[in-house]
Amino acid sequence: AGDVKAGRAKATACAACHGIDGMSKLPEAPNLAGQTEEYLVKALNDFRSGERKNEMMSMMAKTLSDADVANLAAYYHSLGKQ
Amino acid sequence: AGDVKAGRAKATACAACHGIDGMSKLPEAPNLAGQTEEYLVKALNDFRSGERKNEMMSMMAKTLSDADVANLAAYYHSLGKQ
Repeated sequence: AGDVKAGRAKATACAACHGIDGMSKLPEAPNLAGQTEEYLVKALNDFRSGERKNEMMSMMAKTLSDADVANLAAYYHSLGKQ
Repeated sequence: AGDVKAGRAKATACAACHGIDGMSKLPEAPNLAGQTEEYLVKALNDFRSGERKNEMMSMMAKTLSDADVANLAAYYHSLGKQ
């Protein structure tokens, strides 16, 4: 599983749309807070591979390593446990 | 916007995986409670059109009308306001 603290640091790149707290800042971006970790990993990997396409996310996801994906998923998942 | 009550009735088909309360019953299925309505409509329509693919969701979404999509999105979105 990923590292929540490293995920939080990386999530600054996601926060404009998804919020640093995982609550969407614009209607087309989903809330991520407390989302299942497995779903978040799959979503990011599908954007990375091109299996899933979105103008913004296809671009953002390509900058992520496997560790980044694991860490971001751990971070946003963790926000549901507050 | 969709009809929450009609959405709740239709959501019995979604509940085995996503919960009637929008909280995932299995790790590969995302939580839906309180998700933005716009995102939910797009997700369902992308599964309906084949733009987005998933073994379960591609099958389930094909049974939905435009009204069903609007109602389900309204219902699962509404669960975040409890």
